[in-house]
Amino acid sequence: MSARQSSLDAAQILVEALPYIRRFSGRTVVVKYGGNALAGSSEDDALSLFAQDIVLMHSVGIKPVVVHGGGPQINSLLDRLGLKSEFHGGLRVTDDETMKVVQMVLSGQVNPQIVAAINTFGNIAVGVAGGDAGLIRAVQRDPQLGRVGDIDRINPAVVQGLLDEGFVPVISTIGADAKGEALNINADTVAGAIAESLGAEKIIYLTDIEGLRSKVDDASSLIQRIQVSDLAALAADGTIAGGMIPKVQSCVQAVKGGVKRAHILDGRIPHVLLLELFTDEGVGTMITPDGARGNVETTMGKGA
Amino acid sequence: MSARQSSLDAAQILVEALPYIRRFSGRTVVVKYGGNALAGSSEDDALSLFAQDIVLMHSVGIKPVVVHGGGPQINSLLDRLGLKSEFHGGLRVTDDETMKVVQMVLSGQVNPQIVAAINTFGNIAVGVAGGDAGLIRAVQRDPQLGRVGDIDRINPAVVQGLLDEGFVPVISTIGADAKGEALNINADTVAGAIAESLGAEKIIYLTDIEGLRSKVDDASSLIQRIQVSDLAALAADGTIAGGMIPKVQSCVQAVKGGVKRAHILDGRIPHVLLLELFTDEGVGTMITPDGARGNVETTMGKGA
Amino acid sequence: MSARQSSLDAAQILVEALPYIRRFSGRTVVVKYGGNALAGSSEDDALSLFAQDIVLMHSVGIKPVVVHGGGPQINSLLDRLGLKSEFHGGLRVTDDETMKVVQMVLSGQVNPQIVAAINTFGNIAVGVAGGDAGLIRAVQRDPQLGRVGDIDRINPAVVQGLLDEGFVPVISTIGADAKGEALNINADTVAGAIAESLGAEKIIYLTDIEGLRSKVDDASSLIQRIQVSDLAALAADGTIAGGMIPKVQSCVQAVKGGVKRAHILDGRIPHVLLLELFTDEGVGTMITPDGARGNVETTMGKGA
Amino acid sequence: MSARQSSLDAAQILVEALPYIRRFSGRTVVVKYGGNALAGSSEDDALSLFAQDIVLMHSVGIKPVVVHGGGPQINSLLDRLGLKSEFHGGLRVTDDETMKVVQMVLSGQVNPQIVAAINTFGNIAVGVAGGDAGLIRAVQRDPQLGRVGDIDRINPAVVQGLLDEGFVPVISTIGADAKGEALNINADTVAGAIAESLGAEKIIYLTDIEGLRSKVDDASSLIQRIQVSDLAALAADGTIAGGMIPKVQSCVQAVKGGVKRAHILDGRIPHVLLLELFTDEGVGTMITPDGARGNVETTMGKGA
Amino acid sequence: MSARQSSLDAAQILVEALPYIRRFSGRTVVVKYGGNALAGSSEDDALSLFAQDIVLMHSVGIKPVVVHGGGPQINSLLDRLGLKSEFHGGLRVTDDETMKVVQMVLSGQVNPQIVAAINTFGNIAVGVAGGDAGLIRAVQRDPQLGRVGDIDRINPAVVQGLLDEGFVPVISTIGADAKGEALNINADTVAGAIAESLGAEKIIYLTDIEGLRSKVDDASSLIQRIQVSDLAALAADGTIAGGMIPKVQSCVQAVKGGVKRAHILDGRIPHVLLLELFTDEGVGTMITPDGARGNVETTMGKGA
Amino acid sequence: MSARQSSLDAAQILVEALPYIRRFSGRTVVVKYGGNALAGSSEDDALSLFAQDIVLMHSVGIKPVVVHGGGPQINSLLDRLGLKSEFHGGLRVTDDETMKVVQMVLSGQVNPQIVAAINTFGNIAVGVAGGDAGLIRAVQRDPQLGRVGDIDRINPAVVQGLLDEGFVPVISTIGADAKGEALNINADTVAGAIAESLGAEKIIYLTDIEGLRSKVDDASSLIQRIQVSDLAALAADGTIAGGMIPKVQSCVQAVKGGVKRAHILDGRIPHVLLLELFTDEGVGTMITPDGARGNVETTMGKGA
Repeated sequence: MSARQSSLDAAQILVEALPYIRRFSGRTVVVKYGGNALAGSSEDDALSLFAQDIVLMHSVGIKPVVVHGGGPQINSLLDRLGLKSEFHGGLRVTDDETMKVVQMVLSGQVNPQIVAAINTFGNIAVGVAGGDAGLIRAVQRDPQLGRVGDIDRINPAVVQGLLDEGFVPVISTIGADAKGEALNINADTVAGAIAESLGAEKIIYLTDIEGLRSKVDDASSLIQRIQVSDLAALAADGTIAGGMIPKVQSCVQAVKGGVKRAHILDGRIPHVLLLELFTDEGVGTMITPDGARGNVETTMGKGA
Repeated sequence: MSARQSSLDAAQILVEALPYIRRFSGRTVVVKYGGNALAGSSEDDALSLFAQDIVLMHSVGIKPVVVHGGGPQINSLLDRLGLKSEFHGGLRVTDDETMKVVQMVLSGQVNPQIVAAINTFGNIAVGVAGGDAGLIRAVQRDPQLGRVGDIDRINPAVVQGLLDEGFVPVISTIGADAKGEALNINADTVAGAIAESLGAEKIIYLTDIEGLRSKVDDASSLIQRIQVSDLAALAADGTIAGGMIPKVQSCVQAVKGGVKRAHILDGRIPHVLLLELFTDEGVGTMITPDGARGNVETTMGKGA
Repeated sequence: MSARQSSLDAAQILVEALPYIRRFSGRTVVVKYGGNALAGSSEDDALSLFAQDIVLMHSVGIKPVVVHGGGPQINSLLDRLGLKSEFHGGLRVTDDETMKVVQMVLSGQVNPQIVAAINTFGNIAVGVAGGDAGLIRAVQRDPQLGRVGDIDRINPAVVQGLLDEGFVPVISTIGADAKGEALNINADTVAGAIAESLGAEKIIYLTDIEGLRSKVDDASSLIQRIQVSDLAALAADGTIAGGMIPKVQSCVQAVKGGVKRAHILDGRIPHVLLLELFTDEGVGTMITPDGARGNVETTMGKGA
Repeated sequence: MSARQSSLDAAQILVEALPYIRRFSGRTVVVKYGGNALAGSSEDDALSLFAQDIVLMHSVGIKPVVVHGGGPQINSLLDRLGLKSEFHGGLRVTDDETMKVVQMVLSGQVNPQIVAAINTFGNIAVGVAGGDAGLIRAVQRDPQLGRVGDIDRINPAVVQGLLDEGFVPVISTIGADAKGEALNINADTVAGAIAESLGAEKIIYLTDIEGLRSKVDDASSLIQRIQVSDLAALAADGTIAGGMIPKVQSCVQAVKGGVKRAHILDGRIPHVLLLELFTDEGVGTMITPDGARGNVETTMGKGA
Repeated sequence: MSARQSSLDAAQILVEALPYIRRFSGRTVVVKYGGNALAGSSEDDALSLFAQDIVLMHSVGIKPVVVHGGGPQINSLLDRLGLKSEFHGGLRVTDDETMKVVQMVLSGQVNPQIVAAINTFGNIAVGVAGGDAGLIRAVQRDPQLGRVGDIDRINPAVVQGLLDEGFVPVISTIGADAKGEALNINADTVAGAIAESLGAEKIIYLTDIEGLRSKVDDASSLIQRIQVSDLAALAADGTIAGGMIPKVQSCVQAVKGGVKRAHILDGRIPHVLLLELFTDEGVGTMITPDGARGNVETTMGKGA
Repeated sequence: MSARQSSLDAAQILVEALPYIRRFSGRTVVVKYGGNALAGSSEDDALSLFAQDIVLMHSVGIKPVVVHGGGPQINSLLDRLGLKSEFHGGLRVTDDETMKVVQMVLSGQVNPQIVAAINTFGNIAVGVAGGDAGLIRAVQRDPQLGRVGDIDRINPAVVQGLLDEGFVPVISTIGADAKGEALNINADTVAGAIAESLGAEKIIYLTDIEGLRSKVDDASSLIQRIQVSDLAALAADGTIAGGMIPKVQSCVQAVKGGVKRAHILDGRIPHVLLLELFTDEGVGTMITPDGARGNVETTMGKGA
């Protein structure tokens, strides 16, 4: 490819990207970052690329919020401490001891690791726990499950405050009940609820799949774009199942609650966040409100 | 005591307190909260009283910042994991594995516990780790000691940002080196350095002693007030020794760096923070800049 | 009482007071200060204690407004000038000459005296007359009564302006008619109307009685708390009579007009304003809107 | 004069006036209003014309401050009360009783009268006494003279606050000593000191003479413009004498203290304030800083 | 006329003018300046007097906006270039070549001339063309007429922005269609539409007649004041005809659209803008909304 | 090229561009746009691509200022009007008639054309003439050359005001002398002086050459980067000659006056502005201050 051709390509990508950059500047984008998103490459490299994308988004005025889980790391410490998990109706019973481990791993190990990765590119990331300033108020689901909780309400004041001060909040998803006791909550669900409470522009789930499929086993059946009520129907008829259910339900709730777009992306693609945000090219699955048109409403498209 | 007498007493305490309340409104007060401060009563009650004081200080416009350590809790988890500590020149060698435990305990266990205690009185506390937004940049002291660090520089932006937004930062004292790797740092030293970087009005160390003594074994030799250079002399001639040294050195540095008053208080006294801040009565030891007069410069004294 | 007990008591009073201080900070409190309030002690001492309370209230962010009358002082000058008062239907006829004396005494003698007393504690008090910037527009009640007036409308701009600039307005209650001519108005009525126009938190009448009684001659029948419609009923059935009537009517109108609490307090109790505002203990009589619960809505009580 | 000629004249006056209006908008002008200024016509009419000028000045953005005395009125009440004045070295001894009369007359009679006159044109005037918020702190001159005082310092906060809120302060010139006791001070001196403390554009003395003369008995020797050091020389060599001395001394001090222009005008000329401020025509005597050129620095003159 | 009489006259004119100055300060006044307004004197002098009035209006806080045409100058350049005008139904056909000439003359000759005249009195005038920031969006009226356009919509952002920055916009009345192509539009119509879009206080048409007449040939039938619906009736019944029609229609539309007053003035009278704005004397014809009373609502009239 | 490779390329270009976008957001970039820059393609397309770049720059927060000349268009109208140019010492003598033509063409033809081109992408461009608000004050160079001028001083208030309001100023380079008479000034010189007066980040000259060469006839001798004093030396020793001299002199003066970078770019390259601003790739010649390092100081480079 000649230098001149390369220049033309670069110019074209910029002409395409700049209106998106303008469009998203000042908007909040919540990114759910899960352990499985790291599958495509060695963990450090994937985390570093992700961290770079977050800093680049921030550099052009986007307000990213990172929400993370940490299942594998939790299991690892439970093993080392010889704590065995009991299951009840398919769900892990979280006793007090297990809860302490969950909290230590999420807030004391995974969270600082993501914060540190981002801060090597610029000191902007700040760890936030669900108990901070009443961020995630939760209620116990079922005494037999122990410290498993459901979201009661989100108080986004601390997250909004950090965004207003120019920081990137990185949130570990421990909830607190009315007495301040910790409860374990599904991280996907938390991500959607926080996006909704912040009036976010987008919620993006980074996963280890290409996106949603209309036929589970058929790679060619990737859904590139779907309206929220159609997605709810797919969930209802069983097309979508397994681990995708909490993500899909959270997408549905977030978009119904005012988030403009939800995305399920393949976190293994390098710089997938930049590609999704700043190019016309479709990546993964986009969930839109019913009746939405176009990709996003840029005020100036390529031909404008 | 008659009701009338009681009213007169209450009025007198208020007449005494209100000028201090005015004086400290809007000022930053850093409180170092250590495990030993809890000794006088059951842990939960002491923590709860402390938490209430923090919320009351906040309620009248003071900006409290809590800095904590967590030695006993760290030892407990190290034991459970079967990790043994090696010592080198009297200092514990902190290998990578130990460092992870320190971080998990401080940021994932002690910090959320203090945050939760405060937030039962009002959702204002937010946990902060040393790695957040470059708060505590540190350098390794000696490769033979492993991950033991010294403060390189404090970037108080995230703490100041949270204060500006009306929150109470609760800081766990893990530092990060230039690569984002965690380093273990003395919590007393961190408290002083943060107070200095914030231009705090006061740094208060809550301990399990009444205050500094001019004769170690003589309870009647309690030092109620001392100028910073006199205190430095006491440290130099060995009058002050042992675990008080880092506190005293931090006091000296903080006051020389612009903090107006440093205090070493007995954390076992209920509501000791309120008594120190809002009454004329002396509590513990107060360290003042050289040449300072009066307790604090209130703009309106009782007789003014 | 031991020092330790004393400390505990002081701490308890502070724990009780701080939420009230937070609660009232930034709120406007109108205090009607009448000559009879001074009865319990020598005039200067009582005025000085009152002045100190006003300055202390101001020091913690409350915006006090003082409204005063001056009956005895007016009578004294009338006597010296040999002016005799004629009465008509029980009311003193205020001819032009008498009106000049009233104005000179209120604005030129009593008002500067109160201002000076406050300003010995801090230069914050500013005298305001009813004619300033149209504060008290009045209409003549009855030509036969001469220059006796009723309030037409209150323009609180100058009072609000002084509050916004951080001053304490001290108001003498002369009204002005449309031509700028002075009219004599009941000071209790003015105090209530100004509280209403300012959207005050409280109106406090300092008197020389303990409070309202349900049986005039029975000291044990003190009414500590009463709803505004119940109070109106007591006034209607004659339980309340004499000089208390204008105060009570003004309380009723002010509370119906949005002032949150009205109080009738015994000005002879030293620091009665501080006791009323900052302690849980009841003092005098409190008039609340119908249906109001609790003392005040503090956001954090003792047990919270 | 034809209508067309009249139009041309009106246009010419406006062309002349508008740059001055622009020039003085937002500037503070202190006007000393004395009893003798009223001599040319019946008192009410003169006061009304003066009041109208003040309101018109205010209407185009000038910030007028009125300072007044009240000698004749004080004498009148002293007479009525049978209080005789003793003199000591040519100065009236002001005992406590006399001081009370001075204060009542100035703050309770003359001040409300001027305030009322202005407020018939718009509710903007607010009376201010020297004791308000420490405006005029004074010291006793000589115990033998009783309550005669000299200015110790001016605290213009209350005057500036009222100006900032859009009001016109009308100041009675009673000072207060450190204990809050009233002292009698020369009103001309106070006017100059207040102008200086406010950084006023102009201080204007309204008198009953045309202006200063270089020969006392020669009307044709009117001084239209003089530099401050030349004026000081005239005072030193006795050319200026009698009642003009305090005015002249105050002019000298104010101009040396930064006030841009001082004026001694004939208050008997209707609308003399407007003529002085907004026309090219010289009125009375103007005192300028040494070296000042032109009338005022308008940014756009007639020929610009 | 004696000097004293002259002073009284000057004072009276100022007393009359100041309330208007206050009234109009901060308000927007659109002035349509046409070539014919220059007829009464040599062009340069008339332009210079006009320019001075604009600067004086600006100096007292009015926000003038100048809109101009340029018929004679256009004809002159068309002649020099040998371009002949074709007419169609009484209207000049504007081909592309003619349009270029119109644009060059208006934006490149007349506009800079007016801007320069104003800027000799102070650098405040800024030329604006209809194509700037979409100010005048137009649509072609009839293909047979070529580039003749009608207003589609006014976007006053650039004019408002310049006013907010303290400049005086001088607008040449070329419109632009959706493709950015220039269209020729009646300048009177543009002036009215801009006044409406800015929420102007007044629209003033400077012409070479005294004002509107109820009988075309009878100078004594000058209409000094007329309500907008009465004016519309006069236009409908043919009383008003010829070149006045676009002015009158624009007046009607502007006043119906919220502009408070429209004026048709004789631009040959020196300083006619000042006379109209700042004196009680009527000049030319004033069009008011139906039901309007008084000249303008000054908050303080002569007798107030 | 595979889709995946294409994605990687796009991601890489974005990773490269985003820090520049952040770096330049809020900064002013002056672009000199000359007729010769259009040579590489049909005029309309080139102008349209240029206009699109300006709008895209604006969309990401850059504040572009366009300065233009118009030599060929001026010559064309002079020819049509039969005006012949006389030369004196190699410079065209600009008589009054020629000056009028220059002004009409620049402000009435070329300027609206560029404004219209930009405004088809968004209504942000506003034409500005040198006479607007005293933007370009000039002095006559030599009476024999007629209306040829040199810059006396730049008053950028109107340009800064338009930038502050979010508009893109498009400046035609006619100067005005003290009397408001137009003077013809070199457009390259004006561009540099305006960049300096605005404290611009960059001045970019769009030309029809690739950049500066160290050997005029050797395309391989293109200078990619040069310090300002080295460039001044090249101009002094004759390496740079002809039409490049005013550009080079303006670059030198602008960079010495605080503009951070000057660029001479080939305007025939599509989107050359975007390539220069947002890619690492060097385009044309960059002039830096002496001692400057790196391309620009981005706060986060690729490897950071």
